[in-house]
This record gives sequence, C-alpha cells and structure tokens, in this order.
Amino acid sequence: MNILFIMYDQLRFDYLSCAGHPHLHTPNFDRVAAMGVRFTNAYVQSPICGGSRMCYYTGRYASSHGAHWNKFPLRVGEHTLGDHLRKIGMSCHLIGKTHMKADAEGMARLGLDPDSVIGVRTSECGFDPWVRDDGLWAQGPDGFYDDKTSPYNEYLKSKGYDGENPWADYANAGIRDGQIASGWMFDNTDLPANIREEDSETPWLTGEAIRFIDQAEGPWCAHLSYIKPHWPYIVPEPYASMYGPEHVAPANRDAGERDDAHPVFDAFMNGPVGRAFSDDEVRAKVIPAYMGLIKQCDDQLGRLLDHLEATGQMQSTMIVLTSDHGDYLGDHWLGEKNLFHEPSVKVPMIVYDPRGHADGTRGTTSEALVESIDIAATFIEAAGGTVPDHIVEGRSLMPWLRGETPDWRDYVISEYDFSAQPPAARFGLAPRDCRLFMVFDGRYKLMHCASDTMRPMLFDLQDDPEEHVDLAKTDTHVDVIARLTGHLHDWGLRMSQRTTISEADIAASRGASLAKGVLPFLKDGTEVEARLTEKYRGPVRQNHLPD
Amino acid sequence: MNILFIMYDQLRFDYLSCAGHPHLHTPNFDRVAAMGVRFTNAYVQSPICGGSRMCYYTGRYASSHGAHWNKFPLRVGEHTLGDHLRKIGMSCHLIGKTHMKADAEGMARLGLDPDSVIGVRTSECGFDPWVRDDGLWAQGPDGFYDDKTSPYNEYLKSKGYDGENPWADYANAGIRDGQIASGWMFDNTDLPANIREEDSETPWLTGEAIRFIDQAEGPWCAHLSYIKPHWPYIVPEPYASMYGPEHVAPANRDAGERDDAHPVFDAFMNGPVGRAFSDDEVRAKVIPAYMGLIKQCDDQLGRLLDHLEATGQMQSTMIVLTSDHGDYLGDHWLGEKNLFHEPSVKVPMIVYDPRGHADGTRGTTSEALVESIDIAATFIEAAGGTVPDHIVEGRSLMPWLRGETPDWRDYVISEYDFSAQPPAARFGLAPRDCRLFMVFDGRYKLMHCASDTMRPMLFDLQDDPEEHVDLAKTDTHVDVIARLTGHLHDWGLRMSQRTTISEADIAASRGASLAKGVLPFLKDGTEVEARLTEKYRGPVRQNHLPD
Repeated sequence: MNILFIMYDQLRFDYLSCAGHPHLHTPNFDRVAAMGVRFTNAYVQSPICGGSRMCYYTGRYASSHGAHWNKFPLRVGEHTLGDHLRKIGMSCHLIGKTHMKADAEGMARLGLDPDSVIGVRTSECGFDPWVRDDGLWAQGPDGFYDDKTSPYNEYLKSKGYDGENPWADYANAGIRDGQIASGWMFDNTDLPANIREEDSETPWLTGEAIRFIDQAEGPWCAHLSYIKPHWPYIVPEPYASMYGPEHVAPANRDAGERDDAHPVFDAFMNGPVGRAFSDDEVRAKVIPAYMGLIKQCDDQLGRLLDHLEATGQMQSTMIVLTSDHGDYLGDHWLGEKNLFHEPSVKVPMIVYDPRGHADGTRGTTSEALVESIDIAATFIEAAGGTVPDHIVEGRSLMPWLRGETPDWRDYVISEYDFSAQPPAARFGLAPRDCRLFMVFDGRYKLMHCASDTMRPMLFDLQDDPEEHVDLAKTDTHVDVIARLTGHLHDWGLRMSQRTTISEADIAASRGASLAKGVLPFLKDGTEVEARLTEKYRGPVRQNHLPD
Repeated sequence: MNILFIMYDQLRFDYLSCAGHPHLHTPNFDRVAAMGVRFTNAYVQSPICGGSRMCYYTGRYASSHGAHWNKFPLRVGEHTLGDHLRKIGMSCHLIGKTHMKADAEGMARLGLDPDSVIGVRTSECGFDPWVRDDGLWAQGPDGFYDDKTSPYNEYLKSKGYDGENPWADYANAGIRDGQIASGWMFDNTDLPANIREEDSETPWLTGEAIRFIDQAEGPWCAHLSYIKPHWPYIVPEPYASMYGPEHVAPANRDAGERDDAHPVFDAFMNGPVGRAFSDDEVRAKVIPAYMGLIKQCDDQLGRLLDHLEATGQMQSTMIVLTSDHGDYLGDHWLGEKNLFHEPSVKVPMIVYDPRGHADGTRGTTSEALVESIDIAATFIEAAGGTVPDHIVEGRSLMPWLRGETPDWRDYVISEYDFSAQPPAARFGLAPRDCRLFMVFDGRYKLMHCASDTMRPMLFDLQDDPEEHVDLAKTDTHVDVIARLTGHLHDWGLRMSQRTTISEADIAASRGASLAKGVLPFLKDGTEVEARLTEKYRGPVRQNHLPD
C-alpha cells in the first residue's frame, strides 16, 4: 500500500460540502469522505503554518520539537515521519510546501553536508523532495521572503510568463486599468488572476503529483502539500466568477467579544489583519476568492482521484485530506489564524484506508478528539510498523478506521508562540513568555498564557458553540479552569525527550547491570548466584600490599 | 584563563572538613574553599551518575535533554558545554569519567562517522577526550558492564598487573587467606586494596591531568572527572587504615520513616542496597573505606594544586570542585543515591575564580539555591561568552562570585527516573510513568511522582533538617504541597526545546516578514509605505486572462 498525504494550506474545516457548507460544493472531498472516515474534531498542534507542519511531520508537539513558529529551524536530529517510514521500508516524498527551515548551524556543527542525501532530508524535514515549493514568493525591498529558488516560478517562466517573479505578477495578480492589480490587496481579490488556469499553483502541483505517482515504485508515502487556499486570495477564471457576496456567510462575531477582551485577543483584533477582516467589504471580496480557490482544489483532487482510478491504484492508496490550520475570515473580528477559536485551530481530517478492515466505517464520521500528530502515528501503523511511542506523541487513528472504540485521550492540546509578532513587543514580554496553550476536552476550551501576567480564556462549546462568551472574564468557572489547567500541567510533565531508548528497551534492561557484574549490595557474595561473582574470586596471583 | 572542572563521583556534600565533617580532614578541598566560594545549597538535577552528568555537560534539565539515566544515550545534536566553549575560543577536554552513552542510532541516521573529530565529540558528550575512563570495569558472566576498552586497565597491565581485569583483581580487591577479596563485597572493604597506592585510580587520573596541563595550550577547559569515592569501596594503604568504626557517624534514620512510607521510598529501603546499608556492620566497614577514598582524593587534589602553583598557573585557572551526586551510606535506611534526601541530591560545590573581581568573596559561603546546570552557564560567562539562554537552562554563578546579589531562582528542581530499576516492575508502571520530581524552595522539599497513582512526599528542612517526617502522610500541609506543585507545573511548561533560535534573534525578527513583502492585510496598499508594495505594482506586461 502507498500513502497519499494531502495537505491544503489554511483550509477551514467547514468550507467543504461534506462538512455542511451551504454554497461551496466539493464533490471530490466528499467522494473521499464517502470512502473513508471524516474526523469532525481534529485539531492542529499549532495554528500557524510552520509550527503546525513540524508537528505533522514529526508526530510531536511543538514544545517537544521546538520549532514553534515559521522560520524557527527544526533542530538537527529530530526524528521525522520520513525517518520512521524509511526504517520500515516505505519511502517518503515531498511534493509542495513544508515551511521547513533547516537548522543550518546544527548541521554545520555536526559536519552534515547539506547536499548529501542525509543533508537534504535533514533540510527538508525528513522528506525526499520531488519538488519543494512553499508558495510564498513575496518580495519586498529587502528581497524575497524565501531564500530558495522557486520551482513554480521557474515553471511559469518556462511557460512564457516574463519577469523575475511571475508568481506575484501573474499567478497572484489580476489586471485593473492596464496595471498589475496584486492579490495582496483585498480590493483586487474579486479580479481573476492573470494566468491560464492550468498554469496556476494548484493544477501545477497536481501535475507534479501525477508525474511523481507515474514513476514511483512503492511502497511510498507522498506528501502532496498544496499552497492554496492560503492568501494571497486570488484565483483565475472560471473560479473567480463562481462565488459572490451572496455566498458569504455573516461573520461569526459579537460585540461582546470586544468588551474586556483578553489582551492577546485584543491585540490581534486591533492589529492590521483583524481590522481589515472586521470590514465587511473586505470579506465580501476575499471570501468568494477563497471559495474559488477551494473549488479549484476540489476539481484538482478529482483529477488526481480519477488518475488513481484509471491506473488501478485506488485500492492500494491510503488517502488523507487535511490542512495545517484554518482561517478566521473575519470571525471573532480576526483574520488569518494564530488563536484557538474553531475556524483557526480545527481542520478537515478525512482518512481513506482502502483495505478491507475499514469497510465497516466508510462514509462515517468520528467525533474522537484527534490531534494532527496522530497522522504520523497512523501512517507508521498503516505501513506495518509499530509506533515508537517514546518519540512519536500522536496516536494511530487505525482503530477508529477499523470501527473499534479504543481508549482515547480526554483532551487535545494546541500551542501558539507569538514571540515574533507585534503583540509581543506591545506587552513587553520576553520571547519565551509569548506562548499560549489550548486545552479542549470536547466541551470546554481553555487558553492558558505562559506569562503569569495574563489571565486565561475559556469557552463552553456546548452552550456557546459560536465561542462568543469568554467565561474567564468572571469567576463563574474557576473549577473548570482549574480542571483544564490540571490537564495542561500533566501534559507539561509528559516524557517527551527520552527519544533514544524505547519503553520496551528500558523494561528489558532491568537487571542488565547485575548480569554484567555490577553488585553494589553484597556482604559476602552469597546473596547472588555464584556465577555472578565468579569473575571476582580466585587465588591471589600477585601481592602488591605494602610491607 | 583556563578552567579546571573537577568532579568526584558519589562524594557527599558533608564529607569534607570545610563542610563540617568531624573526623575527615580535607585540607586541600578547604584550601580551594578558602580561595573561592563554597555554595552550601547546591543540588544536582538528577541523583544518578549518567543523568546528573548529562545535565552538567549540557547545562539542561534531564527532561530537556532526555538522557535521564545511566546508558540512556544522549541524543545526537544536543548542545554540550564543549560546543558552547569552542564557539568562544576555548577548547574542552575530558580526563576521566562521563558515563556518556553515544546515540549510535542517531549518529548512523545522520551519517556521522564515530571516528571523525565531530563523531568523537558527539560520542563523548562534547569533550575532546584526553582519556575517557568510567571506572566501572565490572564483569559478570555476560561480559563487561562497559563495552569500551579501559585505559586504566591498560595502564595497570603496563605496570605489570596481570590478568584480563586488574581493575577488579587489584585496584578493587584486597587479599584474604590467599584469595582475591573483592571490594564488591562489603565484608572486604576494610582490607587494603592490593595495589601500589600510586597505581590506584585517583593518583593515576591525577597524573593524567598533570600530563594534560603540561602540554595544553590555552584557553582550555579540562573536565577532570574522578571515579572515586564511588563504590567499590576499597582503598589502598595508607588510606585503608586511617579511619575505623570509631569515625563512623550514626546513620541518620528513624523508625518512623518506615511507617506508611511512600511506596517508592519503601521499595528502595527494602531493596538489596537499602537492606545492606541498614546493617550497621556494613556501615562500620564501608564508611571508613569511603573516608579513606576521599582522603586520597584530597591528597591528590593537593598534588594538583601544588603543580598549578609550581607552574605559575594558579592565577590563571578557575577551579570547580563538585560531585555528580552523594551517597546515602545508610541514612534513611538507604544506600547509593536515587532519591532526594540531602545526602543523595545535595553536592559539594566550590568555585575558585582567580580574577580580581572575585577577591571580595574569597573564603565565603553562599546559601543561594544552586543547580548543577549552573556550572555550564558559569563557564560560558567565565570564558567571555554570553549564556545562550534558549539552550542552556542553568544560570551563571559569576554574580555571586563577584559579591553581587542577583535576582535568583526561588526553587530548585531535580528528577529521577527509576524505569530501569526493580521498583518499576513491582509497581507495574510503564517506564514513562517511573519518574520522580523534586522541588525544593530552601525550606520545603517536595517529591512528586509522574504516576498519578502515587502520593507526594514532603519535608520541612527548617523544622526537620534530618528529613525524618514525611509531611505528606497526612493532610496538614496540603497548601505547601500545592504551592510547590505549582512551581513544578510552571517548570513543566518552560520553553526548553526552542534551541535553534535565540531570544534576541526572535525579537529582532519582528517585522521581517513585512519588509520581505508579506502583506496579508492590505485593502489598497496605501496602508504601508510605497516601497513595501513597489514590487507588486506596474503596468501589465502580458495578458493571460481568458477571452
């Protein structure tokens, strides 16, 4: 069996028809959901591209691997999904985005050649790159955001698109009055992107995936990691015209949220992104483009599924559809992601296992509390391995796919590090204190701040599924806060770094010192079997005592 | 300046005359104490050789580096003291013991040649080995405890001692009735070791240190890491005859400790080591040998100090004297170390800084709560560096040496992992649940268990300095327990793995994305300086819109 691990970037959990979106029809996502299990309570370990992805790719919490945010390098030596899969005979490939930043200093310290096979894997979060493209070829006066070359830009150039950065000038811009109308500007997001549809990012990457599949020899795991529907929000025709303001749901926000708001929430609401998305004119232009980008993703997924079927691979390919985080889109007076409301931290999670043991669950949903780190564990089990639970902190979802009801976690954790963002400066906090933790037990959702100068936030998703009422503003729920904080404290003391020796090896090692002759408890030696002391007995051969 | 970082193995904090021992006269330890500062509240991060040492050598807590116990490999890539010092121009050498086990699997995964310079450092916890000898050449029917060759055994063979393991047959054995009388057996510990004194372990290693110093070019840090007074407890003449039962203090133990004892404490009391050391006949033979081993260490320290003075290096050498943990020696019905009573977890810590800024503190003591991880930080500052506090969790002791009164920690943490030991099996615990934590705030000492099936322990060292009364047996101190547990929870959530990017680099990165052209909040571009959007503007050069 092969594994197709498909990730979209910034795809909300509820912008799929199988998840109930009223206007967006996504028959191909729904097609996979009908073949597999859709997990309706799947949460990412950090609602930010880089941090979230490093969790997916290691199966470990952000606090465990340390790469909490974008461009925080993943330390050399950290075990990746690729390491685990290769060990059990499955290759592991990258097609698209990871947001991985290599630990160049660590690699130099260990003398690792970045161009060697191992060096490339270490730089690419454990993957063998078929194509790496992070899709953010932003370019300011200080240069490009990403210091790599862009395979996508090279592709566009090969197709005749001119200039240094056709990603910006064509794929992510329209035309207004003969001028480049950049998709960076929300006023332009209702324009069609000035690119042939088949050359835009999602079809290009789908083509790369098909090229990969057609030459791959299994068993393989391919991480097909789309750049979209992440901003810039602009899409070519026909998608640009598919949705309009009439398809935009009202923002899920309440005036009361702004009263006595938690300081970090307040800072994000009043930051430039929050202010922009609190403007309904922005939403009316952005959200139709976002929906068009998703519709394009769905069509390209259909192209890929059709290719698998046409080549007879649908019965031998596990498929996962998920995202690295969601998008507020104006809900809660916010844009982007970062905090822990549902549109940000919850993600789509659809898992199709072609094997017979999953026949009983096809087309069902599961409300199990899923963490994104479970995906790595799932793949290791699916590929025939045993999850090394001294390294991988996620849990395999295979029992759910088989229709079992395993003992399961009682809460999910997510983390967010805002140390590199403006609010950090506003609060005068040291970077290490700019960390937020979410604990969600299926009903209550707590946000805890590492800085002891800040209170928590609390929502009751049973009574307030819209998350409008922060129950930590008053003292009505101190018991709930204490209980969820207790979960967090237990989690904080988890065993997470003892990655060089397994639980089984430790258990097996008991008594090994004794067998090796370490005997610091003997009075005369009769306490143990004679064979354990025989090397310490015998006639004296030389006498070196002083006269 | 050079640094001589001297560690003894299993040396109790109170077995020095400067620390008040009534019978053991240690003029050379006292001589360093008179030149420096003696820290009277110094605690190791884990009362076990391997775990403690990995904390000293990384400046990080056991839970941070993951090598909690003996022979748990230190993961490849973990930063060491040597890495930090070399970066600021100081070499870092090993003379003696580390108890380091290399992460062979991790090195192979990264393609690191164990015989390369980097491979050797990675295998030796960051040191360049002058000589590595862990001093435990135990040998049972299954072979040697340590799979390396022993430089010390080779030395003995070169001196004419015969056999495969002269460490066992001569250095650690006496003679009784013409038979080898092994020091492993406590009945033999009152015998003199059958070895010429100058060939025993402590003088041999001191000679190695002098050889190192005489050829070294600075600035250097040398970790002179003695094997003694760690068991086997046997010492050659004249030390074997220096102390007798009349010099053995009564065991600090109380019958009440055995009543309703904490299950882990109970398991260790009733294990073979605890039972042996609860026997006063054992103590009467072992403790005089232990004292003799320390006296020999003191004499060899004098030899080394004299050599530094004779070669004019006393004014250019920082000296630290410490230990990896203590030794119960029958106190609290225990032998060995492992738990958190003072004789186990507190260590001697004497720091001599030859420079003028330390003149005001010479010969003083400090009651500051010191952690063993502070040593790495101290050395980095002493060598002219800035402590990379996103990696090193200890704090430099330099302010104390300069007579300052820095803001300081309110509590110390120690950890103990008993997963590889018999009590783990007795309790049926998973290895990951076999972890104990100590929190000590200068008065109260809490022991917390990772397993939620076990209660804590609590001592009040102000009212009960002998630690006889476990206050957690009743509910009289729930508030104190809650407060100390709160410290532990804060510590559990500390930022410990974000080692690839410094606090300063994060603070400096704020706004970098903006400057690189990442602008996900613009309506029309007028919100920012024109230069930030100039790469996204201009006349359309090609039109790819559909007809």
